[in-house]
Amino acid sequence: MALDDRKSEFTFVGTRPDRPDGLDKVTGRAKFGADMSAPGMLHGAILRSPHAHARIVKIDTSKAEAHKDVKAVVTRADFADVPFKPGLEGEFWNVLENVMAGEKALYDGHAVAAVAASSALAARDALKLIEVEYEVLPHVTDVDKAMAPDAPVIREGAADYSVPEGMHPNVVRYHESGHGDVEAGFAEADLIIEDSFVTEATHQGYIEPHACLGMLGNDGKGELWCTTQGHWIAQKTCAALLGIETSQLRVTASEIGGGFGGKTTVFIEPVALALSRKANRPVKIVMTRSEVFRATGPTASASMDVKIGMKKDGTISAAQGVFRLQGGAFPGAPGDMTAMCAFAPYNLTNVKQIGYDVMSNRPKQAAYRAPGAPMGAFAVESVIDELCKKLGLDPVDVRLKNAAHEGTKASYGPRYERIGLVETLEAAKAHPHYTAPLKPGQGRGISCGFWFNHGGETSVSLALSEDGSAQLMVGTPDIGGSRASMALMAAEVLGIPYENIRVTIADTATLGYNDVSHGSRVTYASGLATIKAAKHAVEKLCERAAAKWDIPVEAVKWENGCAVPSGPNAGDFDPMPLADITADMGRTGGPISGHFEATPEGAGVSFGTHIVDAEVDPETGKTSITRYTVIQDAGKAIHPTYVEGQFQGGAAQGIGWALNEEYIYGEDGRLQNSIFLDYRIPVASDLPMIDTVIVEVPNPGHPFGVRGVGETGIVPPLAAIANAVSNAAGVRMKQLPMSPPRILAALKDNNG
Amino acid sequence: MALDDRKSEFTFVGTRPDRPDGLDKVTGRAKFGADMSAPGMLHGAILRSPHAHARIVKIDTSKAEAHKDVKAVVTRADFADVPFKPGLEGEFWNVLENVMAGEKALYDGHAVAAVAASSALAARDALKLIEVEYEVLPHVTDVDKAMAPDAPVIREGAADYSVPEGMHPNVVRYHESGHGDVEAGFAEADLIIEDSFVTEATHQGYIEPHACLGMLGNDGKGELWCTTQGHWIAQKTCAALLGIETSQLRVTASEIGGGFGGKTTVFIEPVALALSRKANRPVKIVMTRSEVFRATGPTASASMDVKIGMKKDGTISAAQGVFRLQGGAFPGAPGDMTAMCAFAPYNLTNVKQIGYDVMSNRPKQAAYRAPGAPMGAFAVESVIDELCKKLGLDPVDVRLKNAAHEGTKASYGPRYERIGLVETLEAAKAHPHYTAPLKPGQGRGISCGFWFNHGGETSVSLALSEDGSAQLMVGTPDIGGSRASMALMAAEVLGIPYENIRVTIADTATLGYNDVSHGSRVTYASGLATIKAAKHAVEKLCERAAAKWDIPVEAVKWENGCAVPSGPNAGDFDPMPLADITADMGRTGGPISGHFEATPEGAGVSFGTHIVDAEVDPETGKTSITRYTVIQDAGKAIHPTYVEGQFQGGAAQGIGWALNEEYIYGEDGRLQNSIFLDYRIPVASDLPMIDTVIVEVPNPGHPFGVRGVGETGIVPPLAAIANAVSNAAGVRMKQLPMSPPRILAALKDNNG
Repeated sequence: MALDDRKSEFTFVGTRPDRPDGLDKVTGRAKFGADMSAPGMLHGAILRSPHAHARIVKIDTSKAEAHKDVKAVVTRADFADVPFKPGLEGEFWNVLENVMAGEKALYDGHAVAAVAASSALAARDALKLIEVEYEVLPHVTDVDKAMAPDAPVIREGAADYSVPEGMHPNVVRYHESGHGDVEAGFAEADLIIEDSFVTEATHQGYIEPHACLGMLGNDGKGELWCTTQGHWIAQKTCAALLGIETSQLRVTASEIGGGFGGKTTVFIEPVALALSRKANRPVKIVMTRSEVFRATGPTASASMDVKIGMKKDGTISAAQGVFRLQGGAFPGAPGDMTAMCAFAPYNLTNVKQIGYDVMSNRPKQAAYRAPGAPMGAFAVESVIDELCKKLGLDPVDVRLKNAAHEGTKASYGPRYERIGLVETLEAAKAHPHYTAPLKPGQGRGISCGFWFNHGGETSVSLALSEDGSAQLMVGTPDIGGSRASMALMAAEVLGIPYENIRVTIADTATLGYNDVSHGSRVTYASGLATIKAAKHAVEKLCERAAAKWDIPVEAVKWENGCAVPSGPNAGDFDPMPLADITADMGRTGGPISGHFEATPEGAGVSFGTHIVDAEVDPETGKTSITRYTVIQDAGKAIHPTYVEGQFQGGAAQGIGWALNEEYIYGEDGRLQNSIFLDYRIPVASDLPMIDTVIVEVPNPGHPFGVRGVGETGIVPPLAAIANAVSNAAGVRMKQLPMSPPRILAALKDNNG
Repeated sequence: MALDDRKSEFTFVGTRPDRPDGLDKVTGRAKFGADMSAPGMLHGAILRSPHAHARIVKIDTSKAEAHKDVKAVVTRADFADVPFKPGLEGEFWNVLENVMAGEKALYDGHAVAAVAASSALAARDALKLIEVEYEVLPHVTDVDKAMAPDAPVIREGAADYSVPEGMHPNVVRYHESGHGDVEAGFAEADLIIEDSFVTEATHQGYIEPHACLGMLGNDGKGELWCTTQGHWIAQKTCAALLGIETSQLRVTASEIGGGFGGKTTVFIEPVALALSRKANRPVKIVMTRSEVFRATGPTASASMDVKIGMKKDGTISAAQGVFRLQGGAFPGAPGDMTAMCAFAPYNLTNVKQIGYDVMSNRPKQAAYRAPGAPMGAFAVESVIDELCKKLGLDPVDVRLKNAAHEGTKASYGPRYERIGLVETLEAAKAHPHYTAPLKPGQGRGISCGFWFNHGGETSVSLALSEDGSAQLMVGTPDIGGSRASMALMAAEVLGIPYENIRVTIADTATLGYNDVSHGSRVTYASGLATIKAAKHAVEKLCERAAAKWDIPVEAVKWENGCAVPSGPNAGDFDPMPLADITADMGRTGGPISGHFEATPEGAGVSFGTHIVDAEVDPETGKTSITRYTVIQDAGKAIHPTYVEGQFQGGAAQGIGWALNEEYIYGEDGRLQNSIFLDYRIPVASDLPMIDTVIVEVPNPGHPFGVRGVGETGIVPPLAAIANAVSNAAGVRMKQLPMSPPRILAALKDNNG
């Protein structure tokens, strides 16, 4: 279906109104994590390990406790005795161990104790009074070294069921999948390229540091205000770590100043609650930027081997990859993700992928948009680019020839339903950017990218006011303009103006369970739930109208915000607007609300194709991105401006990841660049205008066709930029970031 | 049904666990109206009329605006142009006119302008810089004088449709009801007593002054934190007064430090929002105690004529009453209520009652438990007592003879369903207090009392957590321990412990509409909705269990917190506890919640009988209450301790009303006793232990039999104490409060 045909179906969806939270954010009225205070509030600070790996022999907190301004000191003993379980099953134990070290400090920055005092300064001062005796242990921060037989073991017994016997205990999760016969496929190839690639860990770089205000009483009841992508996860995790009941902790998500996957778990929140319980006072903790870098959740670093065989006509005959992901002391499962996503854009007869999740003495790995996918795409799409170059084929044509489509058996298992990869490639080919002339020293690269998208547990309610306005309650923090898209979808169903709907991010005590704002799930899943809740309310509106008219409810339909008699009763009465029904709803049966709870299963996978022009300065090694075009399938763009914003944001962050950002560890295992001056994220002057093309191939699993758009946009940039840089510099770049020293070194190697 | 038989039906209901908000309140963790702050917050102060009645010729705010710390000044022009409608129809206009005077100041304390400044002190200072030119008008503060032909007209056109032509324009509402033929009835009487009674206005005397924090942007979106009995009423009223959409104002009810009916409308809240909109900053306003007395909502004062005819055997052959209620510049409808309640306890063949609501130059009348009922009961029950005395009849026997019962046509119209008046009278007669000997100088009095109780619009949701605990969201502020009673009812249905349920008073943005916590409706209506929402969740739990067991949902019943196979599948599986179902609810269909919205119509009327012993010091005129027993029908006491607390609270407040409390106006129409030193509410040493007897005659309109208990308890005390005092002093007291000077005067009159 052509998109312009679909547009006519919608009144509100697809328009670009101002975001409801706009004035709040530009005037400072919005309250972020650090903006909440409470009477009698204390300030917390956390003592962190200066060692990458050390046994904690003894902690003496007596001097800190004697400080006149200190009201509480906590160590691991002040948390619940959460049972140890290996691997992902041990989620709560892993989080606790990360939140407050137990027997060992596992990375530079690992929390070992915390203080609550009457001022933030006093709290930081008092940290110096805590005496910790460490026994320093050998450490490892590199993924390949961490898998070597002689590597120090980070945590014993951490591996889950997936890991085959005989692997180093630092491997905590193993993934293997694929289909066909890769050896047979390679035998059919006209050209095989096999190469290795490395990426460094990066941080999401959200502007707002982690911040929270916790109150917990000895009655086991508490409240928590925090900046988070998911307050229900914070609720159940903190409850488990403090040994209280989930329902007794009310968690409110503040406005969020960026998360990108990094605010999907807890770091300081359980500490604030433990301090509060001990001091019997509210406790606020706000991280410094250095703490954010050292002790939150950057991405995995990766070491990857990719081998692809291609026929002369561009057909990929076989593809395989081995992806080793370094996930710090508490890896998620990026190795699974990297492996599953790496070849997902292609319709392959023979494919095999292996992923490893490996521990190291670094901070816990967390999500950063499409976790794991960008690294794999970097390796795979670099090899494809090199194959195209060597075979003299157009890189878009080759991708079109191999592109996955409806019915393709995906490299990671399932068969695709309706997908839009071909449409993004065709749009790329047709885009003026793809054929625009390049200046000397410039190169062009393209890449495809894939992300699953996700449904997840979702609860939404909608209540009508007497004046006919509506209140929509969702449980997914608004990290990308979702208040606007939810209001548009509700307006579409109810038939009332967008401006008449207030969207509230309900706290955990006032709505059913909601999964985190992650997995590009919000517009899909909360949107679907919003549509269903609004339809539930419309059913009740029709019932009230039917009762007023004394006709069967089956004879009432809802059109343009009005109940309308239909069927045998068509024309019997004038349409009854929503506000006429709500005006006396208290007397016609009571308040009218709609509700929906489910775990939607119809998330639609999404694909994007990026085109990048880069210019490399051969003298300094500095790369400038001169032109950038993002083409991605949104399924249906509810609010196109915010879809474009997601596309641009993914590309901008990908540019940083590709060119400059990296975690730099010294020999001592300590992070050397934990401030923004040294960890260089792109600033406005580093970026070109990022052009966007929204492709709309509807997701059959969403009433309006929505696919998630938040994550796919960060998958192609690493590869697309590497391809552009390699084409510009005349040398294949296999390690990220492609910072000036690495480019210069590569140029020198190439010339030398 | 005997109560002890019923008790066995329940596991949790009827027990006395600690209140969930107990620790919050004793440790100061609970946040009341004045406890919320916001970054950049300003402080508001309100300029109030020093005149009882004056035309506002001119307001010059320029000097105040020039004050360096002042960020905004508002007058009536800063509010919406709410259309004028007469009577109760003009609710929003009436509220606006009271919140900020228009053309005239109508009472001492009426708001005329307001200031927001960077400190509370600066705001109060700046008030002095506002220049108001008044044209002072004649005033009236007494109800009989306000009805006199020459009385100054408070507001033109304020009377509603109920007022017959020819009445003074200060009469805004008129009520007349009854049945039978009172003249014929009086002709049958052996003794007729006709007398007149007067009561003064009293204040609810809540400890917490009105306080709020308002934020409103020029985008029409705002937030309001306030101490209130009903935040949805605050929401829609403030929205109307500010000219914004209801849904765009999010109102959160703070913890409340007493309300008793006085916090059922808004006073300072729209002012804070108007100041905030103008200053573009959050604005906090906290009333002084003097402002609370001068400018919130005390009770009506009353002037009443009652005539009752009785046969020698105690049968009441006819009863009539005329009740004139002074309701300040903006009366509610206490005249209706007084008239309807006055004879409601009795099964009368001939009855007629007339009620007047009359304006005066006093603050707006508001509810104070059972609004209007105590005054009428004072008059009627005094006359019955006098009849009993003159006819030598026992006052309990006489009331039993005439008591209303199931099927009785109530004096105000409907036929009673099952009611418990007779049971309270029988319990009184059997109570040791009723036959205990009195010392010289002591007297005993009894009285019955009636209140309708109320349903009202109600929305409740309940969400389950993975660990099997539950979150209950209600919209009725907890003014009397309702968190405890709601948790008990939910526990009863779910079959999980009381401690596993967290009850939250949801804000207006996170739940459907809820009527105010008034009309003794909370335990009845929110309780009923809680039970239905919990049952809705249980249905879903049974569905999940049925799916797991692969049996029809009809074959699953819910017992003791478990799904249990039944019918043909009985015994096929072990019972499945709630927590086993919630543990993986995300994978078996999504989050589990229950919802209920309705306007329940089955509120059960309630009756009480009080026995009071009083001792009057003939030298000082001081009355001591030496013993007090409250006997009241609760229908079903969900949490008996809090039911008893309500009984005791009503009696304590009734003692103050009867003996000491009163609004004292000077000739100039200004209130002379606007602080607690001069307006004397009872302190602990003024009160005896108040004994209670809970009668339980189930209300057929509630699943567990609940009737409201909050209001009836204040209806009998005025009369019961007047009867006791009259018996002790040997002189009939016809005016309240029976303060020492009045008692001395009555004794002197009697002796003289």
